Amino acid sequence: MKLRVGFEMLYEFPQPTPMIMVLGTHFTRASDMIVPDFLTTDPVVEIAPYRDMFGNWCSRIVAPAGHMRLSGDGVVRDSGLPDPVFASAFQHTIESLPAETLPYLLGSRYCETDRLSEIAWKLFEKTPLGWARVQAICDFVHHHIAFGYEHARATKTAWEAYSEGKGVCRDYAHLAITFCRCMNIPARYCTGYLSDIGTPQPWAAGDFAGWFEAYIGGRWHTFDPRNNVPRIGRVLIGQGRDACDVPITQTFGPNKLTSFKVWTDEIA
Amino acid sequence: MKLRVGFEMLYEFPQPTPMIMVLGTHFTRASDMIVPDFLTTDPVVEIAPYRDMFGNWCSRIVAPAGHMRLSGDGVVRDSGLPDPVFASAFQHTIESLPAETLPYLLGSRYCETDRLSEIAWKLFEKTPLGWARVQAICDFVHHHIAFGYEHARATKTAWEAYSEGKGVCRDYAHLAITFCRCMNIPARYCTGYLSDIGTPQPWAAGDFAGWFEAYIGGRWHTFDPRNNVPRIGRVLIGQGRDACDVPITQTFGPNKLTSFKVWTDEIA
Amino acid sequence: MKLRVGFEMLYEFPQPTPMIMVLGTHFTRASDMIVPDFLTTDPVVEIAPYRDMFGNWCSRIVAPAGHMRLSGDGVVRDSGLPDPVFASAFQHTIESLPAETLPYLLGSRYCETDRLSEIAWKLFEKTPLGWARVQAICDFVHHHIAFGYEHARATKTAWEAYSEGKGVCRDYAHLAITFCRCMNIPARYCTGYLSDIGTPQPWAAGDFAGWFEAYIGGRWHTFDPRNNVPRIGRVLIGQGRDACDVPITQTFGPNKLTSFKVWTDEIA
Amino acid sequence: MKLRVGFEMLYEFPQPTPMIMVLGTHFTRASDMIVPDFLTTDPVVEIAPYRDMFGNWCSRIVAPAGHMRLSGDGVVRDSGLPDPVFASAFQHTIESLPAETLPYLLGSRYCETDRLSEIAWKLFEKTPLGWARVQAICDFVHHHIAFGYEHARATKTAWEAYSEGKGVCRDYAHLAITFCRCMNIPARYCTGYLSDIGTPQPWAAGDFAGWFEAYIGGRWHTFDPRNNVPRIGRVLIGQGRDACDVPITQTFGPNKLTSFKVWTDEIA
Repeated sequence: MKLRVGFEMLYEFPQPTPMIMVLGTHFTRASDMIVPDFLTTDPVVEIAPYRDMFGNWCSRIVAPAGHMRLSGDGVVRDSGLPDPVFASAFQHTIESLPAETLPYLLGSRYCETDRLSEIAWKLFEKTPLGWARVQAICDFVHHHIAFGYEHARATKTAWEAYSEGKGVCRDYAHLAITFCRCMNIPARYCTGYLSDIGTPQPWAAGDFAGWFEAYIGGRWHTFDPRNNVPRIGRVLIGQGRDACDVPITQTFGPNKLTSFKVWTDEIA
Repeated sequence: MKLRVGFEMLYEFPQPTPMIMVLGTHFTRASDMIVPDFLTTDPVVEIAPYRDMFGNWCSRIVAPAGHMRLSGDGVVRDSGLPDPVFASAFQHTIESLPAETLPYLLGSRYCETDRLSEIAWKLFEKTPLGWARVQAICDFVHHHIAFGYEHARATKTAWEAYSEGKGVCRDYAHLAITFCRCMNIPARYCTGYLSDIGTPQPWAAGDFAGWFEAYIGGRWHTFDPRNNVPRIGRVLIGQGRDACDVPITQTFGPNKLTSFKVWTDEIA
Repeated sequence: MKLRVGFEMLYEFPQPTPMIMVLGTHFTRASDMIVPDFLTTDPVVEIAPYRDMFGNWCSRIVAPAGHMRLSGDGVVRDSGLPDPVFASAFQHTIESLPAETLPYLLGSRYCETDRLSEIAWKLFEKTPLGWARVQAICDFVHHHIAFGYEHARATKTAWEAYSEGKGVCRDYAHLAITFCRCMNIPARYCTGYLSDIGTPQPWAAGDFAGWFEAYIGGRWHTFDPRNNVPRIGRVLIGQGRDACDVPITQTFGPNKLTSFKVWTDEIA
Repeated sequence: MKLRVGFEMLYEFPQPTPMIMVLGTHFTRASDMIVPDFLTTDPVVEIAPYRDMFGNWCSRIVAPAGHMRLSGDGVVRDSGLPDPVFASAFQHTIESLPAETLPYLLGSRYCETDRLSEIAWKLFEKTPLGWARVQAICDFVHHHIAFGYEHARATKTAWEAYSEGKGVCRDYAHLAITFCRCMNIPARYCTGYLSDIGTPQPWAAGDFAGWFEAYIGGRWHTFDPRNNVPRIGRVLIGQGRDACDVPITQTFGPNKLTSFKVWTDEIA
């Protein structure tokens, strides 16, 4: 299966404005790139890539005053298979977790493990360990949060998503990540493209998706509490402790986003 | 000058409990160790060391049910000089910052840059760039927050410290870090020992101190908005994005901390 | 200047075979990447990135039985200037070396400092300290070893290269590293791309190059005893104590390498 | 049980000589120290500690010309139990190994995995995986190498120990480590004190012991192919890839070792 993936964002800047970005298919999917979705800017400015502490390849630019178009458009090969299920993946004891997974047990900007720990234990203490526990968390979150773009808020945390019962895909992910960490399961945030293949129409306007990975059974596994069914056509862009680590774009100064498009479409 | 540094924490655990710890003098001060303040446990348990993504050497143990004493007691050489002041340290443009400092511009668990950005710009937009701006932030924070151990709360964030106007040293540090990041100055959290040398008596009971470092003039510089004067006898233990990254101790299970002592005393 | 850099390796595996790899431009050159030379595999397999103790970002995969193509192809910006020369770089006393350079004084798999110490002192005791001493080592090694791909041997050590007087670029590097360490100068191995720009034709078939860095004058400096002239178009891939630490590829099982291509070409 | 542990080394130096040392009980045993075996020097010189990349606390000094006595003498608590056996510890697939264990699969100065791989597979291919395989390796090495201090040689590698069939404890360890790595089991070298408790007299003169740890069943386990029975009173000093990483002492200049004593004795 081939997917056309890409994005277009139009900005207006009153003054020259530095930006950092985590955009474009993750380097671990390079083998699948038929046409790479490299970042392009209009007007042309120098793009300085860098690698963050999570291994993501990021970009920085200084946008001049005026209009700026950021875009990328590529074609990526995909297995066409739904997210795999490893129902027997076991839960590690904390003492047997690889050291590199331990940061993913701690709190982070949008994942207040300290505030949600008691609730997590009440909710999930009796669920089976491992894959089943992560799935139980996803099931709870999927039903607890009502989806709606009108509920999106850049500052919304897992605790707030839990209390308000409303949110968008990243809030589902943050709440499930927080619960996993409270239950001693390392969990990290993922952002990427996600196709609508196999889901009933009408389809919502394209957007980047947020999901997460849990470390069980000796490796990281994909979970998506927003959709909560194995999905087809998931293409990773970036990974971190939560959405704060992998900003699609972060602008250092005032700006106006006048248009925002993302696509993830099957092509012949 | 020689400082005796150390700590003693007494815990009660109802069941075997994994812990991770960032305790003991930081490896960058290794050459100053006369007697190392190595972590000891009573009862004796296996200690597994590991290095986190910030370079801190951390420890993990599984504490058995019952009483547990964690302690360390060492002697460290110190210059005896107050924190240095580099008043001419310039502020980097964002595009000239080394890539490894960029994570310290983003939000983190206790530093909600997104929520405090507008306030930061209102407060500090007219201050001179560089060292003076960081000092202006420290001055504001020092006067804005009223110190009191009764205001300590494990979940308290910079935003909450700002709103409540009350806190302990780590709240001062978190608020100043957040303001720095909002003003495009990378800032990271530090935890360590801090002596009372040169300050008027009576001295408060010993505790670990929280301060921060700002990246200006091509390097990291120490700032301490809680005390807001150059201090003598500061010994780093750990560094990270905020207190969440460098937990003195983090217990994975219920527990009771029955005693807590820290010392940082000049010795002959 | 722009360089097209990349590689293609064809393997045959009789059975599923785990591999680890240090491939692709080093993160310290990230800001020079115009088109990244990300690792691609055919057939597509999952790539798990990790960071080693030297800071290199590495990859691991499990290659299925059958044919496997590993490749990367990118474009990197370069100053176009030859390797810099700092003829006045001083030699550190051992006691003034930063602690993090000390591992690069010790022996390693291909650098038997214990066996070559006496020879090193006889050869280089009277040379001036610092840059001149490292250059004297490079001059000796450059003339002592006769280059020839037919002399390449995966197990060849510095001692063997010295005794046989034959080798390839990595043997030159290993011998010079070993002599440097024997003379108390920290030295580390580098692997990367190296263009032929500025050298007389005909050019040899492309290959990864091995060179080294010596710690003098407070920083690491590039030396290349194989070529022994400042070269243009050098792009780091990985660093370690010797070639053992930065395996281009390491296969855990039987395999056949049927084709191997590397390119580092100036483009318009 | 209490063990008195310590060492005394007498040196003669014709000129001021820098040294680095990995001496004294490992920091992970700090809880067991009743009297610490800190390094002392006579004449008194400044001791600069540092932490290496394996986490060991090391020391460096500059010994003046003339006589130098290095010593340490401490008392350490010990369980008195023999090395534990976890016969069911499973072998990890390479792809499920924590990234931090991967360096311990590669070759190192004294462990030529490249030269011993074929032999290893011939010898151990049919042994059961996990603990049993490591034990089979220890059994082979224990019988293959004839012990004798007259066979000690600073430059002796695993390959040479295998070929000559003679060696001392560190050669046993190096050969077993190399075989483990060839069989895809991470293995690291340990140096420390080892008492004679429970072994028949007469006892050899005291010395530091070399053994190793293998990563199986989600953690590091102790193995000692020299003795090849669980032993009592083992006190770790340092860990690394092989003996090269944890030099008891490494002198940077000519010297004469005139006396060498090590003790590990049960005390009342």
